[in-house]
Amino acid sequence: MRHLLDTKTLSHADALRILDVAEDMAGTQQREVKKLPTLRGKTVVNLFFEDSTRTRISFEAAAKRLSADVINFSAKGSSVSKGESLQDTAQTLQAMGADAVVIRHGASGAPRTLATSGWISAGVVNAGDGTHEHPTQALLDAYTIRKRRFGPDSRGRDLAGVRVTIVGDILHSRVARSNVWLLHTLGAEVTLVAPPTLVPQDVSLWPARVLFDLDEAVAAAPDALMMLRIQLERMNAAYFPTEREYSRRWGLDAGRLSSLGADSIVMHPGPMNRGLEISAEAADSARSTVLEQVTNGVSVRMAVLYLLLAGSAGESEDGR
Amino acid sequence: MRHLLDTKTLSHADALRILDVAEDMAGTQQREVKKLPTLRGKTVVNLFFEDSTRTRISFEAAAKRLSADVINFSAKGSSVSKGESLQDTAQTLQAMGADAVVIRHGASGAPRTLATSGWISAGVVNAGDGTHEHPTQALLDAYTIRKRRFGPDSRGRDLAGVRVTIVGDILHSRVARSNVWLLHTLGAEVTLVAPPTLVPQDVSLWPARVLFDLDEAVAAAPDALMMLRIQLERMNAAYFPTEREYSRRWGLDAGRLSSLGADSIVMHPGPMNRGLEISAEAADSARSTVLEQVTNGVSVRMAVLYLLLAGSAGESEDGR
Amino acid sequence: MRHLLDTKTLSHADALRILDVAEDMAGTQQREVKKLPTLRGKTVVNLFFEDSTRTRISFEAAAKRLSADVINFSAKGSSVSKGESLQDTAQTLQAMGADAVVIRHGASGAPRTLATSGWISAGVVNAGDGTHEHPTQALLDAYTIRKRRFGPDSRGRDLAGVRVTIVGDILHSRVARSNVWLLHTLGAEVTLVAPPTLVPQDVSLWPARVLFDLDEAVAAAPDALMMLRIQLERMNAAYFPTEREYSRRWGLDAGRLSSLGADSIVMHPGPMNRGLEISAEAADSARSTVLEQVTNGVSVRMAVLYLLLAGSAGESEDGR
Repeated sequence: MRHLLDTKTLSHADALRILDVAEDMAGTQQREVKKLPTLRGKTVVNLFFEDSTRTRISFEAAAKRLSADVINFSAKGSSVSKGESLQDTAQTLQAMGADAVVIRHGASGAPRTLATSGWISAGVVNAGDGTHEHPTQALLDAYTIRKRRFGPDSRGRDLAGVRVTIVGDILHSRVARSNVWLLHTLGAEVTLVAPPTLVPQDVSLWPARVLFDLDEAVAAAPDALMMLRIQLERMNAAYFPTEREYSRRWGLDAGRLSSLGADSIVMHPGPMNRGLEISAEAADSARSTVLEQVTNGVSVRMAVLYLLLAGSAGESEDGR
Repeated sequence: MRHLLDTKTLSHADALRILDVAEDMAGTQQREVKKLPTLRGKTVVNLFFEDSTRTRISFEAAAKRLSADVINFSAKGSSVSKGESLQDTAQTLQAMGADAVVIRHGASGAPRTLATSGWISAGVVNAGDGTHEHPTQALLDAYTIRKRRFGPDSRGRDLAGVRVTIVGDILHSRVARSNVWLLHTLGAEVTLVAPPTLVPQDVSLWPARVLFDLDEAVAAAPDALMMLRIQLERMNAAYFPTEREYSRRWGLDAGRLSSLGADSIVMHPGPMNRGLEISAEAADSARSTVLEQVTNGVSVRMAVLYLLLAGSAGESEDGR
Repeated sequence: MRHLLDTKTLSHADALRILDVAEDMAGTQQREVKKLPTLRGKTVVNLFFEDSTRTRISFEAAAKRLSADVINFSAKGSSVSKGESLQDTAQTLQAMGADAVVIRHGASGAPRTLATSGWISAGVVNAGDGTHEHPTQALLDAYTIRKRRFGPDSRGRDLAGVRVTIVGDILHSRVARSNVWLLHTLGAEVTLVAPPTLVPQDVSLWPARVLFDLDEAVAAAPDALMMLRIQLERMNAAYFPTEREYSRRWGLDAGRLSSLGADSIVMHPGPMNRGLEISAEAADSARSTVLEQVTNGVSVRMAVLYLLLAGSAGESEDGR
């Protein structure tokens, strides 16, 4: 792999390889000394045009556990706010020795532009771009589902036949998009549940079923129920339900939690709005994988950085 | 020790142990290569809900000298400002692999809540909470007094009989509180000097004598005179003296400096308001320990992180 | 060398030594593992009173490649904004163990004050002070010119007879000042081109020729044409040309680019205002050294930190 830009074009083989390497990485994190020398002398730049402490810290921890040097570049107060272009910023970072650029950007497609423009040769990891994709989030979600379902050693397995339901503001969610593509590639069956105004217009082209009634989705006993975070800044828009209505119709409350099948897990990418899209009972229940997702996020990001940076041993046949 | 939350409940044995380990740490900082491998692979998160570059940097330097990885988490621009709870923030940090959380918080008691709620198992260090405590500041102050009074190797000694006078806005000072408890535990005699409106209502319960006249306190020739920093943002409050009055009555000027006993030291936690609570003469005099306090702060914080993180060898009998 | 404060007082021998050590450092960056153990256990503090992500990151990368610990200290939200003096800030950083302080400050002369006041013994590197100097920028520019002109191994060579033309807002530019002094010391012939209102009053004392016509300067076929960045915030001042006029008369457009001699190189300290002082054709042409300058900046800063911190082996005879 040279870059990780999306899950839509990620092959089944590459996706499985990331999950399997992540499982190896997770194993190393159980040791007394968690640090691996693998990426010593490599430099990873976190190039964040939007604030996201949580994602930035996860990549930072992943890189440091592999002994890479990490440089955090926040677009605020930087040349970017003086009008420097993405091209010049990226080329400058590479000229300083960046081996990989982890980019979070408000514009959908910015990571792909960076990776395919010929501006730089460093590996590019999409850490969230506009409403487009957030591929490492989907990979850690898939990893979490696989581990819960198939146990500690599930190398080589995909998610064939696993039923995953994603609930919330699908329209604006890059997490939902990345999950739909990846889960489909891995063989899972995806259902989306959303208020009618928060379903994308082109959803008929997605490999997913759409429902508008959460109770119906819960009654179908999915293997995993993934609650999306509500962006509070969107709540006053005309197309958005009120907080009360949202919570009542599309929130995972105690009642719906108890209706779930015995083996269903509850997922959330965090940070949670407790009491809005997810109740405290659901968030803290034994079904909840919220904190496992965070832990697995570090392992998955270690795997991605390793596959991008640890040399030709990481190349797949098609050179992606 | 599992956490360091305050000095009020810190035992005499644990306090001495921190000071003694700090003395060992200080010794290592004289070597050609100051770095110790002790905490390699451990992750220390600085979770700062209030700005405090000085304290944050001191913990960061301490952790790095022990080869720990350090992740700085400022609450600004983070999920916290999106309404995430302290519980979710802390659990997320631990799920990412944090072994210790150094927390600065505006709310008194937040570190204790974090440590005792069962939310996380990582070690918690209070780096200042509201007007409650700032235990590492008191420990570095005690370390500084001990070293000045008993010389370079004073392992095992407490401060029995040492007379310490703390001057300033006692009412709002977590530094004063932490010092009062710790110094008392270590056997010192503590005197507080403050404007009448800046003395806490419950001060009669504190193991300290209260004076309102700095000249009287100076005449008593304390072994250490600790000037507290005035928070300038409080100066226009009705209960606060004017700047001129404060400086004249409770500031350490050249005259009072010359009245101090020959062996008295002058302390300040920094940053100083030169010309307000402390004159330049006092700040830069040979009696001043201001910079020694800073240096000792790194040693003390190395000791605390070591005792929290370096494994069961660091456990005292009562498991604290 | 104990400090690097300016190029005006930098000797020919010391300047050459920095360039030669930088060439050694560049060699190490071609290896599989770019990290050197040279400054292990040393602490470098980036003390930035002005935002400059680009310069800060370059120093950070340089220090980390030498295995130093790096602490970033931004004056915002720090004790500095609470009124702490430069003296107290610097002494505090040194007391925490800083071996070198890299300082960016809005006031011309602040780095020299820091280095010569007796406040601290740590090495001081000027990373840009007011309109005074930015010595590492000039050193990386000289390094770039030398390497382009004399090839990969040009150790021991200076720039005797090389003709360099610097174009732009000379009046406010610390980059121009540092370059004029250094290039002159190294034997180069310097020409300045600027709008009449952007030439310093004392320019007749500088070892440089002044022109007002860029076309005349281009026709003279300089070996290097260095375009300065326009500070956009100055553009509405009365003494400043309009954007259109500036671009037309003092910008490096495609026409002027094609008029340059076959071996002339085009330089820019970045970040570039494409379309204003430099056209995209010029910025991206084979003559452009913009990205080489960035890469060389890391090598030069590694050399400076090495010479300041790696012990007595780095002392020149005169002890500078």
